[in-house]
Amino acid sequence: MEKSPLKTKPLAIVLVSGGMDSLVTAAIANLENEMAFLHLNYGQRTEARELKAFNDIADFYGVKKRLVVDVKYLKEIGGSALTDEKIAVPLQADNSAILSPQSAIPITYVPFRNAHLLSIAVSWAEVIGAKRIYIGAVEEDSSGYPDCREIFYKAFEKVMDAGTRPESKIEIATPLIRMKKSAIVKKGFELGAPFHLTWSCYKNNDIACGVCDSCRLRLKGFREAGIVDPIPYQK
Amino acid sequence: MEKSPLKTKPLAIVLVSGGMDSLVTAAIANLENEMAFLHLNYGQRTEARELKAFNDIADFYGVKKRLVVDVKYLKEIGGSALTDEKIAVPLQADNSAILSPQSAIPITYVPFRNAHLLSIAVSWAEVIGAKRIYIGAVEEDSSGYPDCREIFYKAFEKVMDAGTRPESKIEIATPLIRMKKSAIVKKGFELGAPFHLTWSCYKNNDIACGVCDSCRLRLKGFREAGIVDPIPYQK
Repeated sequence: MEKSPLKTKPLAIVLVSGGMDSLVTAAIANLENEMAFLHLNYGQRTEARELKAFNDIADFYGVKKRLVVDVKYLKEIGGSALTDEKIAVPLQADNSAILSPQSAIPITYVPFRNAHLLSIAVSWAEVIGAKRIYIGAVEEDSSGYPDCREIFYKAFEKVMDAGTRPESKIEIATPLIRMKKSAIVKKGFELGAPFHLTWSCYKNNDIACGVCDSCRLRLKGFREAGIVDPIPYQK
Repeated sequence: MEKSPLKTKPLAIVLVSGGMDSLVTAAIANLENEMAFLHLNYGQRTEARELKAFNDIADFYGVKKRLVVDVKYLKEIGGSALTDEKIAVPLQADNSAILSPQSAIPITYVPFRNAHLLSIAVSWAEVIGAKRIYIGAVEEDSSGYPDCREIFYKAFEKVMDAGTRPESKIEIATPLIRMKKSAIVKKGFELGAPFHLTWSCYKNNDIACGVCDSCRLRLKGFREAGIVDPIPYQK
């Protein structure tokens, strides 16, 4: 059934890191919303490459409202292999083994990063009148980061209810939260998402390393989906 | 009863804007903690003056661990009289009348600002091992900002539990949340807090205007406490 051409689509903010999960999230959000894209530079090793992926994806979907924010303090605060040059990015090992000294959380965990992302998105949503924030968090088959779990987003929605104007009523949408990486790949292809524009590697800025946590999860997803990853790898 | 000199005080982060509420919060936190001070520059009109107050207060208490973060994107996002030069700071009126067009929230409300503050504090706390975050939020007799209410902080603690390493276990302390402004003044004087180092004015960087929302609330607090405010005012 065709929608009336007069009906305006609601405005939604999509958090777009430039990786495959955020791409597929955008492809899903695009079905029912006018999109505004938000990206964070947080001093991560592959900052410039991720920003390029963000803009390439925004161009692909014709997104005009873009906000790129610098949160350099996450690098200053440190505590993660992604932002601290003194901590090595783990390679070629099972993700579950790459733990920080104290706990079962990967050393690439950037402390509480997604709370920063969401806070910025909520502030922007209040000002531009967006009622929904899409984030490509994946709880199953993924990173093991505490701030990627559904329980975190449910709790954050309560903070949003309590901490914003009563009429703002903003929701968080996490369409991938229960999906396996391979299902995300399939969903993206089904929606014609431009995977060739994305960047997932934690380590390199030119050709993906193929061995860091993020590359391995991505490659495993494509392999299990039976689809060839369109980006080149070092090996 | 004297504490053992060998006992190490726990490390706590105190959010210090440079205003009187954060000063009194620091004076309270100082009783039982080693303090680390966190300050945000967010493009507010009185940014430089507030930063000076922050450093003066940190010097007073001998605080070595200081983190000052620039969150310029709050100005870029806008939507508040505090960060948007096009929106006037309300003067000489009852606070409850200074509302934004859509709701009963003052136009000086910076959308969801305290969520940014807390997110930064939590990331820092995870890295330096602080177990408590002090914030001088006042729900009673105050600004009317949604993110200054106890319900907001209770909800945020749940987000912290869900979104950080399981061993982090960080709490939020809001010792002023139920206090009237006059009680805060009295408490500060009782603890020898250096009110002369603080800055509350939303409008000026040199001599406090005495008529903006924040000056009026401050002056009313001192008046009701029967104590003379040690800083000079324009009128």
